[in-house]
Amino acid sequence: MSDYSLEKHNLAANTIRGLAMDGVQAANSGHPGMPMGMADVATVLWSQFLKHNPADPTWPDRDRFVLSAGHGSMLLYSLLHLSGYDLPLDELKHFRQWGSKTPGHPEYGHTVGVETTTGPLGQGITVAAGMALAERWLAARFNRPDFEIVDHYTYVIASDGDLMEGISHESSSLAGHLGLGKLIVFYDDNEISIDGSTDISFTEDVMARYAAYGWHTQSIDGHDPLAIIAATEAAQAETERPSIIACHTTIGFGSPNQAGTSGVHGSPLGEEEVRLTKLNLGIPLEPTFFVPAGVKAFMAGDSGAQEEWQALWREYQEALPDLAVAFDDGLAGKIPTNWDDILPTFEPPKKIATRNASGQVLNAIARHMPNLIGGSADLTPSNKTDLKGEEDIQKGNYDGRYIRFGVREHAMGGMLNGLAQHGGIRPYGGTFLIFSDYMRGSIRLAALSGAPVIYVFTHDSIGVGEDGPTHQPVEQVMSLRTIPNLTVIRPADATETAVAWRCAIENTTGPTALILTRQNLITNNKSSADAARGGYILHDHPNPKAILIASGSEVEIMEKAAAQLGFEGILARVVSMPSWELFAAQSQAYRDSVLPPHLTARVSLEAGVTLGWERYVGSQGIAIGIDHFGASAPYATVYKEFGLTAEAVAAAVHLLLD
Amino acid sequence: MSDYSLEKHNLAANTIRGLAMDGVQAANSGHPGMPMGMADVATVLWSQFLKHNPADPTWPDRDRFVLSAGHGSMLLYSLLHLSGYDLPLDELKHFRQWGSKTPGHPEYGHTVGVETTTGPLGQGITVAAGMALAERWLAARFNRPDFEIVDHYTYVIASDGDLMEGISHESSSLAGHLGLGKLIVFYDDNEISIDGSTDISFTEDVMARYAAYGWHTQSIDGHDPLAIIAATEAAQAETERPSIIACHTTIGFGSPNQAGTSGVHGSPLGEEEVRLTKLNLGIPLEPTFFVPAGVKAFMAGDSGAQEEWQALWREYQEALPDLAVAFDDGLAGKIPTNWDDILPTFEPPKKIATRNASGQVLNAIARHMPNLIGGSADLTPSNKTDLKGEEDIQKGNYDGRYIRFGVREHAMGGMLNGLAQHGGIRPYGGTFLIFSDYMRGSIRLAALSGAPVIYVFTHDSIGVGEDGPTHQPVEQVMSLRTIPNLTVIRPADATETAVAWRCAIENTTGPTALILTRQNLITNNKSSADAARGGYILHDHPNPKAILIASGSEVEIMEKAAAQLGFEGILARVVSMPSWELFAAQSQAYRDSVLPPHLTARVSLEAGVTLGWERYVGSQGIAIGIDHFGASAPYATVYKEFGLTAEAVAAAVHLLLD
Repeated sequence: MSDYSLEKHNLAANTIRGLAMDGVQAANSGHPGMPMGMADVATVLWSQFLKHNPADPTWPDRDRFVLSAGHGSMLLYSLLHLSGYDLPLDELKHFRQWGSKTPGHPEYGHTVGVETTTGPLGQGITVAAGMALAERWLAARFNRPDFEIVDHYTYVIASDGDLMEGISHESSSLAGHLGLGKLIVFYDDNEISIDGSTDISFTEDVMARYAAYGWHTQSIDGHDPLAIIAATEAAQAETERPSIIACHTTIGFGSPNQAGTSGVHGSPLGEEEVRLTKLNLGIPLEPTFFVPAGVKAFMAGDSGAQEEWQALWREYQEALPDLAVAFDDGLAGKIPTNWDDILPTFEPPKKIATRNASGQVLNAIARHMPNLIGGSADLTPSNKTDLKGEEDIQKGNYDGRYIRFGVREHAMGGMLNGLAQHGGIRPYGGTFLIFSDYMRGSIRLAALSGAPVIYVFTHDSIGVGEDGPTHQPVEQVMSLRTIPNLTVIRPADATETAVAWRCAIENTTGPTALILTRQNLITNNKSSADAARGGYILHDHPNPKAILIASGSEVEIMEKAAAQLGFEGILARVVSMPSWELFAAQSQAYRDSVLPPHLTARVSLEAGVTLGWERYVGSQGIAIGIDHFGASAPYATVYKEFGLTAEAVAAAVHLLLD
Repeated sequence: MSDYSLEKHNLAANTIRGLAMDGVQAANSGHPGMPMGMADVATVLWSQFLKHNPADPTWPDRDRFVLSAGHGSMLLYSLLHLSGYDLPLDELKHFRQWGSKTPGHPEYGHTVGVETTTGPLGQGITVAAGMALAERWLAARFNRPDFEIVDHYTYVIASDGDLMEGISHESSSLAGHLGLGKLIVFYDDNEISIDGSTDISFTEDVMARYAAYGWHTQSIDGHDPLAIIAATEAAQAETERPSIIACHTTIGFGSPNQAGTSGVHGSPLGEEEVRLTKLNLGIPLEPTFFVPAGVKAFMAGDSGAQEEWQALWREYQEALPDLAVAFDDGLAGKIPTNWDDILPTFEPPKKIATRNASGQVLNAIARHMPNLIGGSADLTPSNKTDLKGEEDIQKGNYDGRYIRFGVREHAMGGMLNGLAQHGGIRPYGGTFLIFSDYMRGSIRLAALSGAPVIYVFTHDSIGVGEDGPTHQPVEQVMSLRTIPNLTVIRPADATETAVAWRCAIENTTGPTALILTRQNLITNNKSSADAARGGYILHDHPNPKAILIASGSEVEIMEKAAAQLGFEGILARVVSMPSWELFAAQSQAYRDSVLPPHLTARVSLEAGVTLGWERYVGSQGIAIGIDHFGASAPYATVYKEFGLTAEAVAAAVHLLLD
């Protein structure tokens, strides 16, 4: 790269600065400072290193680029436009406007070339760790001597904010542990955050911290193209450790009055300062959104690397046809269809915790779905998430299928997103339901960006028992139901658990949360595949007088209540409702068949907050639940003391019918 | 301490090991390994260093002890019992049983001597950082030459899991930045987590990382009492930096067959292994829960230090009576009563964002409440949380009133809990509502343990506009409402914002979340102090035909809808409902007066998920909201495109009345 043209570089970098200023100014909203500060780094990376083909943004062996500091979205949009992606200049002119391809923060699936949704800080660098792990796993599985069909870098631009967030600490520690040598992070070390200088809150030695994680570290002048080139080459040469390059930059580079201040972080420069900055940088004042001749050619993504890869891939297909099909199937997100052959069946009335049933079902599916990999946040024996006979994925042995995330729920959530969005892998991850709170930021992004991640949340209620209120979820199930595009399934027994897993695998447009018990539940002889409809009639009578609705472990209490009421001559229908989202997706006719509008004597029972259950019990119904925190004691005691009993349900029905 | 009796030490440490084994065995549930491994450290700390008086557990200048690894609760219960707290042996025998004082994880307010609720990993060490900051702040405010009335340590026992969790990274970085020299962490470096050896997931150099944070670090044999003593003294001698002492221990120390394995982490040893361990350690097999003579005397907390302090305090009261009163008031949690003098009023129909009104109200209250301190997670200019004329709290200047938390929402949440639970301080903290997701683990613990923390959550809806779906909360308000004992208030204008702050200050038994807009809202001339009732009639007519219910920024849309309907001859009541929790606490009669049961034509409007609104609109009402993610565009456009309009409300009313 000794012939690197500084002149062309500067023209390109300043073009990016101009586009970023103009985009933010036109929207009168946005973050110009970061794109202007990191323009040099980005220009070097995209013009000299990034292996990609804008004409085919889904080429599997492309380098992944993640803008963890998603607020600097104009940087990414500028890069996509200049390098040849289908993102016309008109879209940049409509930055942050309704219907544009250039929203405030980069959105996966919305804008071509955006590899993941970023903005909430710390998520992008974590997703990137997941992508880098996916690359190593696919390489281990599919590469053969002379057939390196998986061999790409994952590049990240991260900000001070990214590196302050706990999720990035978790994922960087794990990336160091796993030795993800092809992960390269450019840290925009501009010493400015929204509140002012990082001196006021962030004075640790970041590079020493990353060294402690086992990373390769460098510090450079982020405005020196040759230094950026050298550091990137050194990072690439380090194959055993992830790399971080602290790039000392000036936020808002080029702005005579605002460079190096927090003022330029999250606000437009203002027309006058834009003018002065353009004069300072030698950017023509008119037209706005100016792209000089030659810049696109300099920044253009090259199809050459992909053409070479395609040639290799054709040889691979001939030489290793089975592997080639498996590779393609993984990328296509192919899932099993022979569910009857795959899913285990469970004998009623055997008692088994749904977490245990889940472990059996997961293992059964995994045997037919080689790209299903996952792990647990250090709760493997409790979550039952291990894959029997499979090895751990570890540094030097990426070929395993099980990930030891450590006690790092948030990193797990973010890395699952990266594993899913890299392509080729279907990921799952387990922890206690209570700790879904710790990873909610990542769950939301999975839902928002449609990542088909599967969460195995066990220990789902006061059924946890002795661990007490700190570990007994009461609000988590309902709280997860509030997240759009997240499918929450809380099966009532082992049979429904198998159905839930099938639904989770078949849900390829968003995440699914499986909510599972610690305690044993009776396998119900009426449970059926109808659970996939989200709610169905479990027990019925001709002309029932009341409807009893429950999810999960409370269904068996409802069955007892129905039996007791039957003994008293009151015929009650029992509805098992494992998933609100799946039920809501059914036809009105179906839903009315399960919950006939005229049947208003309804009682719901769920070991959690009642907020929301009015949706199904109606104004005249009664929702029984727990609108307070739990207590430490054997679970049967807690259920009884909190009034989650068949007797309470029967009493409520009497109240409604009287 | 050269006369430290190793014999007495060993007897005490083994007594703790015996109690831990017996407690877990009796409950057939719990975590014996950690108490057994850390018994030596705890014995040294509590017998030789901890400044406390079990007879007066609320003595303000006591050292704080936080068991961050809350799963080892039997360690803490044993220490409390042996050192003289009112926790009889019978309670230890009822470990994890209904109604006992010894729940599965330590609970603040439930068991005397428990300084904070722990169990969810990473929270305790973060709360401790908050406590250590509280100590420095109170010292700066109230100490005078020769009157060091605030001068204590905060000690922590933390586990591998604590140090893997992102929240601990955030708070440890900030504790290093703040130079909290009286914070001393004993890290139980036992190299075992639930999944097995920490080799499988946690191989970073933890001490190097803490050094990078600016901490004083040491590594010792955690079973060598003299080494523990020397390290603690060295940590105390270091006054400028927080200290962490890596204590190399054997989990389940003393167990012949299970020591050093993950098997002893979270399961009882089993009767036979308990027997073998007792034989190995020289603990009599009978009776269980055996406490040898002399152990209590060795471990006893001493009232001497407090007596000295009391003498000093009496002199202080005489010499500095105003300061003494202020100190006492702070500890007593005294709050203002002259609200009419304090709260600013706002002129209708002036437009002002509720975040801006909040800033004004906060500053007005702070002038009358000197112990109200807080900060923001690097969003001060957006959250409007700064206190005018007050300085930052920084290393060397703890006397300020504003905390720069950095981009560390979860640490902020945990440290706010510590500031509150230390005593003497009333804390608040701000971030965007969307990032409440990042700190949910801490919010939950505040609610569970009754910490009167105030959250200032701004940018509360699609009203965020251009930042787009990653930053537009849609599910957060409802999701926060699911948390028991958290009061959520979403004021409709500046007047209600003042009321909301008053309610927040007056809520001393749990946290309050203020949900505030980015965008300007009209100050309503009917808004009133009735907002404190959670829901009230804003506009009415004799014999209304419909009720329009809204919270926050949607109230002004409801006003427009009511006006439009009025024009069409349909008289509609408008109910402003800023807080579900406050409304639920009103009498049935009041609630029925606002929402008369016979008036079933109800429409709700809230810029968030509709889940839950059936509670107030009933089966026959219509809830208008957003059951999907947002979009990036100017906010007025987003409201219109998503159908959150007066026209949509009017149409819904027509539908209901037709």
